[in-house]
Amino acid sequence: MLTRIDHIGIACRDLAATIAFYQSTFGLTLASEGTIAEQGVREAMLTVADAPAGTSYVQLLEPLAPDTPVGRFLARRGEGIHHVGYGVADIETALEAVGATGVRLLDARPRHGSMGAAIAFLHPADVGGVLTELVQAARNPSHRPVP
Amino acid sequence: MLTRIDHIGIACRDLAATIAFYQSTFGLTLASEGTIAEQGVREAMLTVADAPAGTSYVQLLEPLAPDTPVGRFLARRGEGIHHVGYGVADIETALEAVGATGVRLLDARPRHGSMGAAIAFLHPADVGGVLTELVQAARNPSHRPVP
Repeated sequence: MLTRIDHIGIACRDLAATIAFYQSTFGLTLASEGTIAEQGVREAMLTVADAPAGTSYVQLLEPLAPDTPVGRFLARRGEGIHHVGYGVADIETALEAVGATGVRLLDARPRHGSMGAAIAFLHPADVGGVLTELVQAARNPSHRPVP
Repeated sequence: MLTRIDHIGIACRDLAATIAFYQSTFGLTLASEGTIAEQGVREAMLTVADAPAGTSYVQLLEPLAPDTPVGRFLARRGEGIHHVGYGVADIETALEAVGATGVRLLDARPRHGSMGAAIAFLHPADVGGVLTELVQAARNPSHRPVP
């Protein structure tokens, strides 16, 4: 069902500084940056590696306000890994299969994620404490310009 | 410098149950299972995807005792994502480059990881709260039998 590790999502307090850190320390390149208002974050996608099966990213997340999921995460745990996103070929099929096993879906239907992807989150309490996201990437995400 | 997301490391209380969960829920396959005494864990590597650049895994970690790094992590935070491991082509070169940026190395020299890999951890306080591992995979890890 899973095709790859699409990204790890990392909560940070200062998006610009953290982008610069990943660029200068690990040589990652910025693929996209923007605001996802419905998730209450500013976010950046940095390319770890391009591969035939799809690109893998570090996703950096800075909350737009303290009273948002990532804002509450930072208050409770501090900066660090927030979630993992796995690639799937077809997100509708994957959600149906995962839901049938009894794992609760935070998103019963896919919604829009970064870079044209269709995404859905699973309930971390049903995935061993891991906030888990399924990601069906857009066909040609690498062709999308940096906003 | 980074060639891919090699694995995410997940702390769990019951390795066997968590292996079974990832197999039945997401269809992952068990690549290796064993004890790493010096890290104080029993661990399992489950294959997310094979790719020309290298295989990506979910690594499950069950502490051998409460007074171990993963045991303390579980006591403090509960089950969940413990670290991320990035692939590198040459770990000696990567450690030198990362160390030169001022990031403290928990392992100044590579040590043995799962499945014949050479690994080293970076200090999470210098990587935005993220326990970060660099992994130089063995040449043909997929040829190694499950212990």
